[in-house]
Amino acid sequence: MEITHGEITLINGPNLNRLGVREPGIYGTATLEDIEGNTIKSGQDLGFAVDCHQSNFEGELIDFLHNSDGNAGVIINPGALTHYSYALRDAIASISTPCVEVHISNIYAREEFRRHSVISPVVLGVISGFGIMGYDLALQVIARHVCKKSSL
Amino acid sequence: MEITHGEITLINGPNLNRLGVREPGIYGTATLEDIEGNTIKSGQDLGFAVDCHQSNFEGELIDFLHNSDGNAGVIINPGALTHYSYALRDAIASISTPCVEVHISNIYAREEFRRHSVISPVVLGVISGFGIMGYDLALQVIARHVCKKSSL
Amino acid sequence: MEITHGEITLINGPNLNRLGVREPGIYGTATLEDIEGNTIKSGQDLGFAVDCHQSNFEGELIDFLHNSDGNAGVIINPGALTHYSYALRDAIASISTPCVEVHISNIYAREEFRRHSVISPVVLGVISGFGIMGYDLALQVIARHVCKKSSL
Amino acid sequence: MEITHGEITLINGPNLNRLGVREPGIYGTATLEDIEGNTIKSGQDLGFAVDCHQSNFEGELIDFLHNSDGNAGVIINPGALTHYSYALRDAIASISTPCVEVHISNIYAREEFRRHSVISPVVLGVISGFGIMGYDLALQVIARHVCKKSSL
Amino acid sequence: MEITHGEITLINGPNLNRLGVREPGIYGTATLEDIEGNTIKSGQDLGFAVDCHQSNFEGELIDFLHNSDGNAGVIINPGALTHYSYALRDAIASISTPCVEVHISNIYAREEFRRHSVISPVVLGVISGFGIMGYDLALQVIARHVCKKSSL
Amino acid sequence: MEITHGEITLINGPNLNRLGVREPGIYGTATLEDIEGNTIKSGQDLGFAVDCHQSNFEGELIDFLHNSDGNAGVIINPGALTHYSYALRDAIASISTPCVEVHISNIYAREEFRRHSVISPVVLGVISGFGIMGYDLALQVIARHVCKKSSL
Amino acid sequence: MEITHGEITLINGPNLNRLGVREPGIYGTATLEDIEGNTIKSGQDLGFAVDCHQSNFEGELIDFLHNSDGNAGVIINPGALTHYSYALRDAIASISTPCVEVHISNIYAREEFRRHSVISPVVLGVISGFGIMGYDLALQVIARHVCKKSSL
Amino acid sequence: MEITHGEITLINGPNLNRLGVREPGIYGTATLEDIEGNTIKSGQDLGFAVDCHQSNFEGELIDFLHNSDGNAGVIINPGALTHYSYALRDAIASISTPCVEVHISNIYAREEFRRHSVISPVVLGVISGFGIMGYDLALQVIARHVCKKSSL
Amino acid sequence: MEITHGEITLINGPNLNRLGVREPGIYGTATLEDIEGNTIKSGQDLGFAVDCHQSNFEGELIDFLHNSDGNAGVIINPGALTHYSYALRDAIASISTPCVEVHISNIYAREEFRRHSVISPVVLGVISGFGIMGYDLALQVIARHVCKKSSL
Amino acid sequence: MEITHGEITLINGPNLNRLGVREPGIYGTATLEDIEGNTIKSGQDLGFAVDCHQSNFEGELIDFLHNSDGNAGVIINPGALTHYSYALRDAIASISTPCVEVHISNIYAREEFRRHSVISPVVLGVISGFGIMGYDLALQVIARHVCKKSSL
Amino acid sequence: MEITHGEITLINGPNLNRLGVREPGIYGTATLEDIEGNTIKSGQDLGFAVDCHQSNFEGELIDFLHNSDGNAGVIINPGALTHYSYALRDAIASISTPCVEVHISNIYAREEFRRHSVISPVVLGVISGFGIMGYDLALQVIARHVCKKSSL
Amino acid sequence: MEITHGEITLINGPNLNRLGVREPGIYGTATLEDIEGNTIKSGQDLGFAVDCHQSNFEGELIDFLHNSDGNAGVIINPGALTHYSYALRDAIASISTPCVEVHISNIYAREEFRRHSVISPVVLGVISGFGIMGYDLALQVIARHVCKKSSL
Repeated sequence: MEITHGEITLINGPNLNRLGVREPGIYGTATLEDIEGNTIKSGQDLGFAVDCHQSNFEGELIDFLHNSDGNAGVIINPGALTHYSYALRDAIASISTPCVEVHISNIYAREEFRRHSVISPVVLGVISGFGIMGYDLALQVIARHVCKKSSL
Repeated sequence: MEITHGEITLINGPNLNRLGVREPGIYGTATLEDIEGNTIKSGQDLGFAVDCHQSNFEGELIDFLHNSDGNAGVIINPGALTHYSYALRDAIASISTPCVEVHISNIYAREEFRRHSVISPVVLGVISGFGIMGYDLALQVIARHVCKKSSL
Repeated sequence: MEITHGEITLINGPNLNRLGVREPGIYGTATLEDIEGNTIKSGQDLGFAVDCHQSNFEGELIDFLHNSDGNAGVIINPGALTHYSYALRDAIASISTPCVEVHISNIYAREEFRRHSVISPVVLGVISGFGIMGYDLALQVIARHVCKKSSL
Repeated sequence: MEITHGEITLINGPNLNRLGVREPGIYGTATLEDIEGNTIKSGQDLGFAVDCHQSNFEGELIDFLHNSDGNAGVIINPGALTHYSYALRDAIASISTPCVEVHISNIYAREEFRRHSVISPVVLGVISGFGIMGYDLALQVIARHVCKKSSL
Repeated sequence: MEITHGEITLINGPNLNRLGVREPGIYGTATLEDIEGNTIKSGQDLGFAVDCHQSNFEGELIDFLHNSDGNAGVIINPGALTHYSYALRDAIASISTPCVEVHISNIYAREEFRRHSVISPVVLGVISGFGIMGYDLALQVIARHVCKKSSL
Repeated sequence: MEITHGEITLINGPNLNRLGVREPGIYGTATLEDIEGNTIKSGQDLGFAVDCHQSNFEGELIDFLHNSDGNAGVIINPGALTHYSYALRDAIASISTPCVEVHISNIYAREEFRRHSVISPVVLGVISGFGIMGYDLALQVIARHVCKKSSL
Repeated sequence: MEITHGEITLINGPNLNRLGVREPGIYGTATLEDIEGNTIKSGQDLGFAVDCHQSNFEGELIDFLHNSDGNAGVIINPGALTHYSYALRDAIASISTPCVEVHISNIYAREEFRRHSVISPVVLGVISGFGIMGYDLALQVIARHVCKKSSL
Repeated sequence: MEITHGEITLINGPNLNRLGVREPGIYGTATLEDIEGNTIKSGQDLGFAVDCHQSNFEGELIDFLHNSDGNAGVIINPGALTHYSYALRDAIASISTPCVEVHISNIYAREEFRRHSVISPVVLGVISGFGIMGYDLALQVIARHVCKKSSL
Repeated sequence: MEITHGEITLINGPNLNRLGVREPGIYGTATLEDIEGNTIKSGQDLGFAVDCHQSNFEGELIDFLHNSDGNAGVIINPGALTHYSYALRDAIASISTPCVEVHISNIYAREEFRRHSVISPVVLGVISGFGIMGYDLALQVIARHVCKKSSL
Repeated sequence: MEITHGEITLINGPNLNRLGVREPGIYGTATLEDIEGNTIKSGQDLGFAVDCHQSNFEGELIDFLHNSDGNAGVIINPGALTHYSYALRDAIASISTPCVEVHISNIYAREEFRRHSVISPVVLGVISGFGIMGYDLALQVIARHVCKKSSL
Repeated sequence: MEITHGEITLINGPNLNRLGVREPGIYGTATLEDIEGNTIKSGQDLGFAVDCHQSNFEGELIDFLHNSDGNAGVIINPGALTHYSYALRDAIASISTPCVEVHISNIYAREEFRRHSVISPVVLGVISGFGIMGYDLALQVIARHVCKKSSL
Repeated sequence: MEITHGEITLINGPNLNRLGVREPGIYGTATLEDIEGNTIKSGQDLGFAVDCHQSNFEGELIDFLHNSDGNAGVIINPGALTHYSYALRDAIASISTPCVEVHISNIYAREEFRRHSVISPVVLGVISGFGIMGYDLALQVIARHVCKKSSL
């Protein structure tokens, strides 16, 4: 499928570069490369180019977000920054691109501190607990979002 | 598509029978009938029969859950019971059917009391904030879940 | 007086069917029948038909509220559901009928848990502590409310 | 009607002298003078003289309360002192006159700090959210209260 | 033994109809039928008829409690309603029948939310953690309670 | 009955030596001697020797617990230590003997601080509110516990 | 005895002018006049002139405190201002005169809000629960305090 | 400079009349007279008449605020009332004059209770920690504010 | 003076045997022996024998309290047990002897945890912050208490 | 004016590079370049060179702070790091340069989490709510601060 | 090595006499005797005599601490008293001997209540989670501490 | 000694590059270079190569941790990130290398926010309060840890 609907930014936060290597009981055996590869492919199927980024630096994640302003959408898994990075939250609030928050594990079923996201109040919505499939679902959400706007 | 993968139970909780009629600013203009119709159709496409239920009674919702034991999956939007019904939570914990929790609005972006779900710790995962599309995403999750198990 | 101003729904929640029988020290000796009889009569004097309901089921109270949509007003004493039923709150928020919350005892002068109402933020106002007279005052509030709107 | 049932004290607290001038969206367009005039007139209809006071000084409000000891009743809108003046609370507790707490707006539907009244545990009851009509309802409560006692 | 000491009401709350089927690690393998059968038999041995009820509806449990007014005693396992149903609490407070609260598992050794019962302050006492034997112990408590009163 | 099932340790904590003398309104008129006498006798009927201890010293109670390791069971009323003695809790956790926690009054119906037991998470279960009869019930629990194990 | 040790300021806060008239069960039957008379007399016996003040106005109490700067001591019963008047606290901190905080009732044995004094951290010490005798004890404290300083 | 930009009200709250006399370590050696003199002079330089008030009475401060309605601005240091006077907050909210909140010391670096201002949510902004220079900065803010409005 | 008014028990808790040796900045230079000697002498002057005890063992302090039942009064400084020993509190509640709680330092002006006493709700009253003079004041309180009772 | 008073470091934190572009309703239309240009110019007027930095990286902000040690002053707007970056706080505490904390919006009038600054306890003072003018005021504070020191 | 550096007191609190016997999964298989033997030997190597104590009595532990005043150091594992014994804390604060707090398990990785030590604020430092090796490390700390002082 | 036991990673977090320069009262006069030099030397004595890193960037610290996977051990002093960096915590949890958390000062004896470490639940143990000696102790812990494993 042709890339006609624009670009989607995929942002993975701290420690997600370790996926597949460690704690597969919680996070599964898929690697970050698997996620990025799948999302690029699924994006293509829906007519989007997917731009993939990962960083362990809050500042770099903020830069990625600023740079995605004007894109079709952002899919973000902020890792543990989910629970305290008000700077990341403000970065999302500072762009007009619709964001979808994804978590591989069900964060509401884990330690107390993981049950609260400071990011959620500024995103379109949250998908949590469905493994790497969550990224695919997020892609669909953005695709639908773009369609709605273009049909107005 | 033939119904080969079994039955999925769709359960909507208190006040969701009012969808489309009131507060469209928050919940959109789709009605409960729209949701149920769409889900049945999408279910068929994936090879599932979808059994739809709505009730304003916690007790009846618990009965629906008990009855869904052995089904392929449960999609549940518990409405405001999300925030206090430990009885609903225990009903989900008492069945082996995988459950997906869906919210039409982004509950984490609303009043303080809506940000905490007593249901989330016992479901597979949560989809919140994507309007009625959330039900479709939940269907996909269960379909994938069934495939994984059957491929073992 | 003729019934010209429409219908008012009177809704009493859990355990209010026990009024007069038990704990008269807190709730007085009047029975639910007394309250309903008085309110019907006072309603007639103000030109309203009063439709009376009581239930110990949260789900049934929600149904009563949905059914009252379009009426002149709702007078509701949610009993102990006052303190935790967000589903009842959402039912009130889902209808356009003005609601008045009534409590026979002064809930702010009793146990800690009774001092907080999850219902109050979505009603027109609250009357608490004046025995069964509170229902009469609520009727007057709705009557005045109707007059204001009709005089616009 | 003749003044035969005694005297009622109407006490309005801090900033209520500004009524009608500012924030009519919350408090309406009636002025303090309107409230006092109406209450005096309604009082006369019920056979009570109404003694009206307003002050921005907690100490003066306490004096008003002490002076009302022995009267038929007190109607008090403590303004923002509602939320912290334990001294006002003790003044009410120190007199035998029945007090009714009135709020023009629905304090339970506003900022968090307004949802808690330190006064409520020592009054007969609370009327909140019905605009200046609340003062009239309070008058009726006291009238009924006086009747009950005199009929013993 | 003859039924001379009157009737005892056994009330089991939400999800207890699932006993024995699921989570036997926590709740054991006995079914609700086992509990009811045993309690009826033990009741007979002590001279009591035992009237057994289970419901997943808070409202129905409240009705059972109201109907048990005047009986010799109530044995109640409120299930998860233990932790939030102030309506159930008020139902117990509204009857003069002595109530014993029973929990199959030791609720104080489980999740944080299970450690607090809103029911306990209005019952005679609590038995928690001894499996279905707890119902037998509760029966003995009521039998002893009846003896004491009849010996006065 | 012969002592064939082994020894049970009965441990009463601080101030329980004052039973019967003071605050009979809360704790009844039975003395510690009555409790110990009854429990020894009931123990004999069930085939257990009951070893009785009381101390106002947390350290001594810990010693009693350590010494009961290997016994058939421990019945413990920790008095006010219930609410803060993590050392007592650790002592119970350090032995393999099953413990039953007993309270004469219904601790959940008293002052706020009495509603939380730091002991409960490490015992078999809790019996609270049935006066000195609670000790008898605890004996039965241990007897049943012993039977189950010996029948394996 | 001659007045040689200087002046002591006695300050009573809101509602203490009502002493003896109301709630004698809590505050006793002595009036403010009794307290002031006794304290003046006891002061004379110890060689101090006692300057007595009472006000229901926080502002006036602050003025009294400012005026007492340089005196031998201040005895203050801040009434309900004890629990929230940080302004009073700052007034005490702004003077070098040693202050003794007195409460007629045992504030630590009453409602939760009375158990915390915002004043106590800036006074010499607190005397609470001994009725009007507390004022006498406070006098002795200041007398001793003056002696110590003059003996240096 | 001519007074052409109107009048500014300077309001100092409880205990600020003690400035310079006590606790110079925290508040510096400048007196209230210094502050008022400086502010008048600085105001003149900017073209404003400055009307200076200080009171230890919450009620009087409220009156000052009401009287400043229509002025160019209010500079307020509420003293310890900062931390609890919701009445003062409502007085500020009831006027249209822009207010600047000033604190001589850095309140966020002192006792816990000083770190929260109930006033801040209704003022233009806050200046804290720069000694009496803060008043000068506040003047500049109001001057700039007036310029902006007049330049529209 | 003759011992005619009976016996008073002086109880000092943990670490008070270290008085005078360490931390004189907080507790002064007087030793426990000084306190006991002074209290015995002052007791004699008032006609009381004073029985002095100190222990670092909670259990022993409880025993002292039980043994003082029937005495004229108890003066107790519970040391750090003040802040958590509910067992000590229950011991005081279990005797009819009036108790006075004494603290050498002003506990309300120290670390957060020292500001709350679990003992205070069950004593006659509290004296805190006046050094060893507090014991003398407590003696006077008990003497006065005894006089009142004997004069009835 | 000549640069004679040394260098001032201006540090802006995460997302402040987005100023003017987004959310002008909250933050105004001025850009970061405007702020830096103005501050450099105002600095020159006061005799200071202003060294401007912005970063979205906490670590880089810490480096800027370390590098400013020995300068005349630091003006810092930490963005959302204000609310959780104890590392930034420690960096400020680790240098001897006086810091002024500036916020463009009135952070005390926004979301709950923005009302608390972990930075404020270690800075000279705080300026919040006056738009980009706050940076100018901060400059003046540092200028005055330098003057005071140099005049010693 | 000769004992030239003085005496070190080793104090183990409640339940540590049970080490090795129970819960080896948490506490390892070493017994108290092993710990004491090792510490004595390691002490000798460093030139210290080690005096070993264990008690389940808070009072006895306080006595041990008092007796260690003047020694070279104290190594203390307070067991569960760590979490509530303010009396133990005061005992440590009352002596000038440097104390090191040791925990065998990592208390910060266990139940919530174990994560807070009331002892830690008054000790030199804390070693937690390294099994019985922690005692050896503590010995080294004290040895180094002694050296530093003697080298001054 | 030969390097036979592998490599240990030493990681110091934000502001630790400032050691020795500032706040020597809290952190001592040793510099980061001293710590790194000593640790390398002590490591050599124990047969380990020590790889030293410091960064003010959370992201870089996470990278250091990922890179240390497979090493013999990690010694980490996370600086102020200790109190909020869940991302650092997850990085530690994502590697199999045993980590020891070291703090130079006794963090439990400082400001409230420093008493809680989000890192501690995922490390082997914690050493806090012994100055730079803590790093040496940590080295010994890892050395012992390696020995144990290699002896299996």
